[in-house]
Amino acid sequence: MKIALLGGTGDIGEGLALRWGRDSDYELVIGSRDPGKAEQRAADYCNIIDDDCAATIEGKSNAEAAADGDVVILSVPPEHLVDTLKSVEDKLTAETIVVSPAVMMNRDQAGFHYSRPEVTDSITAKVEQAVPNDVPVVGAFHNLPANRLATLDAELGLDTVIVADDQEAGETIKELADDIDGLRAVHGGSIGNAADVEAITPLLINLAMNNDGMHGLGVRFK
Amino acid sequence: MKIALLGGTGDIGEGLALRWGRDSDYELVIGSRDPGKAEQRAADYCNIIDDDCAATIEGKSNAEAAADGDVVILSVPPEHLVDTLKSVEDKLTAETIVVSPAVMMNRDQAGFHYSRPEVTDSITAKVEQAVPNDVPVVGAFHNLPANRLATLDAELGLDTVIVADDQEAGETIKELADDIDGLRAVHGGSIGNAADVEAITPLLINLAMNNDGMHGLGVRFK
Repeated sequence: MKIALLGGTGDIGEGLALRWGRDSDYELVIGSRDPGKAEQRAADYCNIIDDDCAATIEGKSNAEAAADGDVVILSVPPEHLVDTLKSVEDKLTAETIVVSPAVMMNRDQAGFHYSRPEVTDSITAKVEQAVPNDVPVVGAFHNLPANRLATLDAELGLDTVIVADDQEAGETIKELADDIDGLRAVHGGSIGNAADVEAITPLLINLAMNNDGMHGLGVRFK
Repeated sequence: MKIALLGGTGDIGEGLALRWGRDSDYELVIGSRDPGKAEQRAADYCNIIDDDCAATIEGKSNAEAAADGDVVILSVPPEHLVDTLKSVEDKLTAETIVVSPAVMMNRDQAGFHYSRPEVTDSITAKVEQAVPNDVPVVGAFHNLPANRLATLDAELGLDTVIVADDQEAGETIKELADDIDGLRAVHGGSIGNAADVEAITPLLINLAMNNDGMHGLGVRFK
């Protein structure tokens, strides 16, 4: 199994790469618009995980990474999501699973708020509309604290909700997520349910802003 | 401190009454449209908590309960929220704190979805608009599993998010919530942030529907 992390040089991509690099045997491809930067970050991740880097972590352009991946994770900033998808869509096939962890937020005086896209009702649904028809899309990893994920000493004990219209694709991504120590994947049903999952992320930021000692929050359902 | 639970004969009201009855010294007033039913349920709650019923739990009409309460919790079904408020609004004063735990949901083929009121962006905001101007409103207890709350043997280990424009009122309700064993209250900021809190409830139902062995879920932020 080869996992491509588009935009894997920063934010949530870094955390997922480090965790899978340490906790699983998956081959990882870090994608970036700048292939040189991707190679550099791949080497950095290897150093962080293990001096010998038992894991296979390569760095490539986003397009090459998308072509390589059995699973392609869109770990790019949400404002670059559609552009990035367009730049790689001819590399996606019915055998590729595209994973959207993106969340759109806006901010006003009260705090952060989930921002629904106008046309579709969630970012995950927007991604599903943007990929070629036969490419399965899965929403996952929406509510994970990126910095904590990238700090390998930090314990997680967190959940991530999987939403998918293609149940087999959803099950595959659930297994990938469960392979990260301290992460538990739970099924949230179809992509029609994604908005209320994505909406947790601005709430987590508001909790960090309004409570002493709470930061880098994730969620556990219990 | 006297807590009035309007619609306290069922659902979330029952759970909160039983928990406060067991875990705190607050005086509780169970409200119902039918005062006789309220009295009967108050006696039932006493029996469940303790044969001697050390706690003070009375049953009254919703209007009488609202007049008595320092804190008035709108634990009525969401479709009766505004009617119930209208029927008690002359009993509310600037010294009353009104608490909204209500969530609106709709259901389609995919599952349950948070349903935003058309005019305001959350039920808590709708309640704030419906009460007289000087009555402080707090959103709380939105994401608690009612049946588990009402099962006193069930451990909670859960969070509830407090949203309030009146910080003092928010702090008062946080203290009430923290008095329930196993419940932790966290500040979510102002009522402008309530929608993303309320939206967790349909997600919890979707998780129960899509995962074996997960039911009566709440949430912990960690």
